[in-house]
Amino acid sequence: MNRWVIFGAAEIRDYDAIRPKIQTDDVIVCADGGYRHLEPLGLRADLILGDFDSAPKPETDAELLTFPVEKDDTDMMLAVKEGLRRGCRSFLLFGGTGGRFDHTYANLQTLLYAEKHGASAALADERSMMFLLKNDTAYIEKNEGEKVSVFAFDPICAGVTLTGFYYPLQNGTLYSHVPLGAGNHIIEPQGKITVRKGTLLVVISKEEAV
Amino acid sequence: MNRWVIFGAAEIRDYDAIRPKIQTDDVIVCADGGYRHLEPLGLRADLILGDFDSAPKPETDAELLTFPVEKDDTDMMLAVKEGLRRGCRSFLLFGGTGGRFDHTYANLQTLLYAEKHGASAALADERSMMFLLKNDTAYIEKNEGEKVSVFAFDPICAGVTLTGFYYPLQNGTLYSHVPLGAGNHIIEPQGKITVRKGTLLVVISKEEAV
Repeated sequence: MNRWVIFGAAEIRDYDAIRPKIQTDDVIVCADGGYRHLEPLGLRADLILGDFDSAPKPETDAELLTFPVEKDDTDMMLAVKEGLRRGCRSFLLFGGTGGRFDHTYANLQTLLYAEKHGASAALADERSMMFLLKNDTAYIEKNEGEKVSVFAFDPICAGVTLTGFYYPLQNGTLYSHVPLGAGNHIIEPQGKITVRKGTLLVVISKEEAV
Repeated sequence: MNRWVIFGAAEIRDYDAIRPKIQTDDVIVCADGGYRHLEPLGLRADLILGDFDSAPKPETDAELLTFPVEKDDTDMMLAVKEGLRRGCRSFLLFGGTGGRFDHTYANLQTLLYAEKHGASAALADERSMMFLLKNDTAYIEKNEGEKVSVFAFDPICAGVTLTGFYYPLQNGTLYSHVPLGAGNHIIEPQGKITVRKGTLLVVISKEEAV
């Protein structure tokens, strides 16, 4: 099944930076008020779902799933669960960062939920992209002006190797109370991140003047 | 020793919301470019430290500690370590959220570092305040329009009890891949959060229209 691109309701400040990341064969899904991003991006939704407690239920030709307001899952989580149920194993989440921090953190945990159910998932906005990496290797292309940070998302991550990075690491250990892997960057055409045991949070961010 | 209030360099959008949270006997510390917040807040620094790679070294009467750019610690972490070394056991961090997400996440891990060294620490901005709670109980006053979210910061948190909350919980288990405790709020004068085993991330956020 094709990748699901899910839009949450958080502000997207630069649609031009988002547009090139969406592919024509992506399934476009909106979690609750996330449908407000459709028009600025020139997209049509395949599915819109949520409890519509903070945004009105939209007039739409898309499939619409309505959930009760009082439920255990966030709207983003509902969307990921629906995707998993329908066989999707690749998710890209927008509009899920930069608003209230509890929403952002809930979305990080949703990435972990997807990962635990055999899917890959990333959370992205104009300036950053983050994903989890468990007992696995990831390759990241070098892009000028991008920082690549690696954090222990579990209490301990063992066998962490960073190759092609400015600050390399060979079979090191990262701890969730020591942000040792923050603010690194790639110096070769491609960087390689491996974690032997544990889940890393990888954050790719455009540098910007503070 | 008095509480250390540490300012990082990330943007503070509403100084009026920050000012009442600072007490006259707080030790005022700036991590690198965080000193830019002093003037808008009408504060004088006791200590300014950092590598001053992205902000010029300030002209100041305060104590100034300069670190090399290539170091293992973030500037915020340097400040917390310095505080711990001098006997501080209570930290409040501003200017550490809302910028690049890798910085925000590094600051969350810094909270855990402080906690592991016997200190209490919180990370705050205009609209939210977050702290970690390990094998402990916290009491939170009800404030109209505030959401209180509780996340497992460890993979599993056992014996979680929420009393005085709209969605109460009695001796429940939270997992880091299920954001079950997001978007709750307090309905009694005071809410009580207990975790028997594990570290919770508690996020108190002002609601706002998306």
